[in-house]
Amino acid sequence: MKLYSTTGAPNPRRVKIFLAEKEIEVPTQEISIMEQEHKEENYKKISPSSRVPALVLEDGTVILESMAICRYFELLNPEPVLFGNTELEQALIEMQSRRMEMELMMSVAGTFRHTHPAFAKLENQIPEYGKIMKKAAEKRLFLLNQELENNQFIAGPKYSVADITALCAIDFCVPAKIEISENHKNLHRWIEEIKQRPSSKIM
Amino acid sequence: MKLYSTTGAPNPRRVKIFLAEKEIEVPTQEISIMEQEHKEENYKKISPSSRVPALVLEDGTVILESMAICRYFELLNPEPVLFGNTELEQALIEMQSRRMEMELMMSVAGTFRHTHPAFAKLENQIPEYGKIMKKAAEKRLFLLNQELENNQFIAGPKYSVADITALCAIDFCVPAKIEISENHKNLHRWIEEIKQRPSSKIM
Repeated sequence: MKLYSTTGAPNPRRVKIFLAEKEIEVPTQEISIMEQEHKEENYKKISPSSRVPALVLEDGTVILESMAICRYFELLNPEPVLFGNTELEQALIEMQSRRMEMELMMSVAGTFRHTHPAFAKLENQIPEYGKIMKKAAEKRLFLLNQELENNQFIAGPKYSVADITALCAIDFCVPAKIEISENHKNLHRWIEEIKQRPSSKIM
Repeated sequence: MKLYSTTGAPNPRRVKIFLAEKEIEVPTQEISIMEQEHKEENYKKISPSSRVPALVLEDGTVILESMAICRYFELLNPEPVLFGNTELEQALIEMQSRRMEMELMMSVAGTFRHTHPAFAKLENQIPEYGKIMKKAAEKRLFLLNQELENNQFIAGPKYSVADITALCAIDFCVPAKIEISENHKNLHRWIEEIKQRPSSKIM
């Protein structure tokens, strides 16, 4: 088994934090996006769309998509449970996990990709779209702060995969130049708590 | 239990097809997006971001996000299995399901939202972004046709939730004005087969 990953990108980071929380070690090969290694023919044989991360199993089967890789490890090594236990807990974690991905992570990434000078060469940038994405990210952070008023973690009383995605999205606000308002007290309380986990240091 | 849904939109349709495949009946209330019912205060108490569908449980708990609702029903009523059986099957279905959502459905929806005149009032349209989304959708349809060369269904030999998402995305190509090339023989073979399922008629 081998994980192809890259340092500093939010999606591979989600998988690495997930594995650390479960104390699972997987041989990992670094793919440098800045060196365009994800676009080399050898890597494209594994991930035809040049996506990172990728998990290659012993028999050569490839699992792409961060959440598919995480779920695979959750099924093989359930403890500690990060996708929920009961049917309802699993549904609510899935709900919050998807909101953190689609409403927060994607709008932060959209801001970065469409406004950051470093991405001008890699992306057909539309700064106007980047601005819409930035507003969407800010709106979602506002809502998240409200949701954290009565919840210790993103999906309720337990740390879950939704917290991992939220952390990676929020840390990605720095290069995307999205500021987290000082007024978001609940969000800052959550960030302080999450940052104390050793896994949060993984990049 | 009550499902709030709307006719003709791809996300609620995914849930309705999923329920039909499992032969589960849930009392459903129609929310008209054209009549802006999703923005009324009563509905916002259920879904603060005005998202449809929403599932309200007996105790008032709300589950949002189509795939979270589907997973909840999968856990309660496993047969027929639509998210996979073994760990690997579940991981590969999750992988294809997410690709169909994020690479196909979202680019088709992005094309529609940013180019369709009917959406001009509801969306801050950026036609240039709509064009990028259209190209992304066409590229994904090209890849999907290749993937279907050796697969009967989207995620392998079994019908799954990934087929439901793909069907809803592909049918949404019509209002988005994305044509499916006649050269995509494998894709057309899959479409013909899927359309024979009674659940595919649900809108």
